[in-house]
Amino acid sequence: MNTFTVKAYGAESTTADLKEMNIERRDVTSKDVEIEILYCGVCHSDLHTARNDWGGTIYPAVPGHEIVGRITKVGSEVTKFKVGDLAGVGCIVDSCGHCNSCKHDLEQYCENGFTGTYNGKDEHLGGHTFGGYSQKVVVDSHHVLKVPENLDLAAVAPLLCAGITTWSPLKHWNVGPNSKVAVVGLGGLGHMAIKLAKGLGAEVTLFSRTPGKTEDAKQLGADHVIISTDEAQMDSVKGKFDVIIDTVPYVHDVNPYVTTLNINGTHVLVGYLGGLEPILNTVPMILGRKSVAGSVIGGIAETQEMLDFCGEHNIVSEIEMIKMKDINEAYERMLKSDVRYRFVIDMQSL
Amino acid sequence: MNTFTVKAYGAESTTADLKEMNIERRDVTSKDVEIEILYCGVCHSDLHTARNDWGGTIYPAVPGHEIVGRITKVGSEVTKFKVGDLAGVGCIVDSCGHCNSCKHDLEQYCENGFTGTYNGKDEHLGGHTFGGYSQKVVVDSHHVLKVPENLDLAAVAPLLCAGITTWSPLKHWNVGPNSKVAVVGLGGLGHMAIKLAKGLGAEVTLFSRTPGKTEDAKQLGADHVIISTDEAQMDSVKGKFDVIIDTVPYVHDVNPYVTTLNINGTHVLVGYLGGLEPILNTVPMILGRKSVAGSVIGGIAETQEMLDFCGEHNIVSEIEMIKMKDINEAYERMLKSDVRYRFVIDMQSL
Repeated sequence: MNTFTVKAYGAESTTADLKEMNIERRDVTSKDVEIEILYCGVCHSDLHTARNDWGGTIYPAVPGHEIVGRITKVGSEVTKFKVGDLAGVGCIVDSCGHCNSCKHDLEQYCENGFTGTYNGKDEHLGGHTFGGYSQKVVVDSHHVLKVPENLDLAAVAPLLCAGITTWSPLKHWNVGPNSKVAVVGLGGLGHMAIKLAKGLGAEVTLFSRTPGKTEDAKQLGADHVIISTDEAQMDSVKGKFDVIIDTVPYVHDVNPYVTTLNINGTHVLVGYLGGLEPILNTVPMILGRKSVAGSVIGGIAETQEMLDFCGEHNIVSEIEMIKMKDINEAYERMLKSDVRYRFVIDMQSL
Repeated sequence: MNTFTVKAYGAESTTADLKEMNIERRDVTSKDVEIEILYCGVCHSDLHTARNDWGGTIYPAVPGHEIVGRITKVGSEVTKFKVGDLAGVGCIVDSCGHCNSCKHDLEQYCENGFTGTYNGKDEHLGGHTFGGYSQKVVVDSHHVLKVPENLDLAAVAPLLCAGITTWSPLKHWNVGPNSKVAVVGLGGLGHMAIKLAKGLGAEVTLFSRTPGKTEDAKQLGADHVIISTDEAQMDSVKGKFDVIIDTVPYVHDVNPYVTTLNINGTHVLVGYLGGLEPILNTVPMILGRKSVAGSVIGGIAETQEMLDFCGEHNIVSEIEMIKMKDINEAYERMLKSDVRYRFVIDMQSL
């Protein structure tokens, strides 16, 4: 298979800073599109993969799965895009297409494992996939999204991961105009959860550990902010919420939040992979038919639905634009939660 | 308020055996019916309440919330029943009627707390409520169920608690002919979960720790039995079930069961009130949009629906009939799981 060389930015080992490197992209096959990457959002997963925090990273690692750009080539069978169209790529660049999940537009739960945009198994070239910290990417058009023309393109990039990760549970658990939604944690995911839940018409509450985020949360669309360390405030929302989107990425006690769920309410974990400590108490769950659930990103059709919704409702991420060379510094700032609310790389700077 | 005296069987202290005693019942008010109790099922909660295992028992304690009998009196406003009708009473004899849960036929989640059939607050006579180990009971007709005439009446009694406790989550999580349901634990609740899930058309699997229950489970309607201590068997059902009804009443590891849930599947705890140990791992929940939930008994309308369904499908509990004087021995046997699958007291023996 013919390939071409593009500049990228990646890590060569667990401890190495990211630096410029060359990678190969395949020439478009009949079903592919080639995208010139204009902006790429910076997700916590990028950092965790670059540093092998979860194990399993294959080096060199080129992160980036919040990709927006313009189509520069289309394969012979592609009808969905033409050269010059805006396009987006999220966390998934391939999936089996025939399992029960894929057949139901749930590629994120592909039974044969979807191909991640980076650190996945590259079925075309062998080796592993490289992400969006690069000049161009070539992707099967099924996994490429149409991007509304009316939005700030750089601020669209984080919708491809932070946006869909919060949109999917909001939709799956039927959030709408009569819903009461709470969001735990105000970072890249949390700020999108607030905007999207508000866009869907819900009454939105942010749970925060400190009062410092109240004003920000309200500007993003939150109707209320509850300081989760304040017992009286927590008591005041007992039994209130239909859905809680919990974006906290580290171990934390979910029990206090479960008591704030309404009958039939669901606490959805989207940020923390690991054991629930302190241990989960079943009493409020049984006595109120409450659920604790998890959710990961979203399917392709659902991602398109989210982008279209954002176009109609003028919803984008709050971003801080950086140059490619500043990525290592940006990772350090992310570790200190020093970003409101998502870094986006201007790929022209590569 | 006028009362009348009936014979009952109850405990006078935490350590006392149950023995015959007299209790007072109110004369029917305009909305009440009086029921001559013919049979009363024996639930684990009876034993726990008699012995104050959960704290909060008020003595004397007269257990029993799986009650069937015949109407002997009706209040002036009662249109639902006439003297001579069969009737059933489950775990709930009163609820506020005006909260959001009650307005949606979810009396089991009454925001003001439903009145338990025993050890609840008696709003009519003061003091606390006395259960079905007695000759007669007087209950507001809203909370009294119609009992199909075609079923073995004694074997209907356990439907009022064990039946509805498993029916409610089966219905809430949309179990039907295309569902794959698993049941954890084969006791009073578990055997009803198998029968009801099978009645609803589902493919039913029992999880059991030992092979000894396989034949019984299949006779009850289970299509498959998986020995949960056999890793190969557990692997063979990975990702299979839409709903798991977990009837185990003591602390146990739910993580192996969660991995057997399908995408969007739900593990419903109905038997164990307490902390989930070992700790719950969110990884399979997030990567498969799986839920862990709880559920308690069911609402009045839903209980009627279940009884009608059982009438149509000829479903009753498997019972061992006992005399009232044998209740203390029965409790000891229940503690050893030495019952297939529910004791029912012949109240004529009181």
